[in-house]
Amino acid sequence: MKIITISREFGSGGRELGKRLADIMGFDYYDREIITEVAEKQGLDAGYVERELDNHSWRSFTLQFHRSFATVPNIQVTNTGLLLEQKRVIENIAKLGKNCVIVGRNADIILEEYKPFNIFVCADTDSKVLRCLERAENQEKLTRRTVIQNMRRIDKNRAATREIITGSRWGDRSAYNLTVNTTDWDIKELTKSVAQFADSWFNR
Amino acid sequence: MKIITISREFGSGGRELGKRLADIMGFDYYDREIITEVAEKQGLDAGYVERELDNHSWRSFTLQFHRSFATVPNIQVTNTGLLLEQKRVIENIAKLGKNCVIVGRNADIILEEYKPFNIFVCADTDSKVLRCLERAENQEKLTRRTVIQNMRRIDKNRAATREIITGSRWGDRSAYNLTVNTTDWDIKELTKSVAQFADSWFNR
Repeated sequence: MKIITISREFGSGGRELGKRLADIMGFDYYDREIITEVAEKQGLDAGYVERELDNHSWRSFTLQFHRSFATVPNIQVTNTGLLLEQKRVIENIAKLGKNCVIVGRNADIILEEYKPFNIFVCADTDSKVLRCLERAENQEKLTRRTVIQNMRRIDKNRAATREIITGSRWGDRSAYNLTVNTTDWDIKELTKSVAQFADSWFNR
Repeated sequence: MKIITISREFGSGGRELGKRLADIMGFDYYDREIITEVAEKQGLDAGYVERELDNHSWRSFTLQFHRSFATVPNIQVTNTGLLLEQKRVIENIAKLGKNCVIVGRNADIILEEYKPFNIFVCADTDSKVLRCLERAENQEKLTRRTVIQNMRRIDKNRAATREIITGSRWGDRSAYNLTVNTTDWDIKELTKSVAQFADSWFNR
């Protein structure tokens, strides 16, 4: 079984790369599917679960400083519960024994024993902002400033969640087999090269 | 003209990757050749020049703290002179207009205007130590401990020199198109994938 994991900076095109990679290589693809399953298993709304998981560290941090101590444990238990459920869902994906690409969610660490090919996707700020603005629906009326704030918040949460769960630094080059900077690349073209890289890794 | 630059952690196999990449792609290759030319132009010994350049930041730092102030400027002028000469040598390589691979020496920043394909090569500590021990001649009697100390010192100097010259952080993923972790790879196999990546970059 071959597993590819993709971690990424918000707006870097990591999700598109993952989707295309799965298409080219004929692998299953998991991204939001994980959230949906966590929500189902816990009997919760998928949107709520996503917000909880993505804001996990940030919220518990805020709470410890700004609210009464009594409310902290409940919130933290909820979040930890979701994180554990998410871990189980990811482990079950691996147990299916099928080749797959998993985007985000620290799958690289959770599935370490399967020796996945781990990719980190980054890009410079300008190209990330551009991608976010292009992707946004017209109604959203996003400004560059809003996008950058959003990007920083999400990446900060991803980094904090990774540290909490895995004890390792998010984006640290030593944790990934390949770190790809998508700046000035066409993701479609880039995907072909990444696929060859992954192939070579699995056949080594 | 296509330029590939390689920055690397000591012991990661970056030099071997660079040499093989140049062979596969039919590019010129520059590494120690740069030192030799700097030495010739300055009428100095190549070994001396290499030690001076590699210990640049570390030495000027020590000197500022431990020696009398009067001796500092001379030493610093020597080092700055060598760094400038090195910069000229690298710029002259680019002016030849031929496809090339340049290992180290912050060539990615010096030749920024040529839009080089910039690679950073890293590996985990164990595999770097193993590579260093294998490479060492028997007479050297290196221990794991010595190798790690050496590795840290050299990488620290590389990082400091980069910051002094370029103001940017060494190894920071955003500065490179591709960051490759050579752990558990055969460099020869890996080189093929990197070459395809570089090709795709130049033909984009």
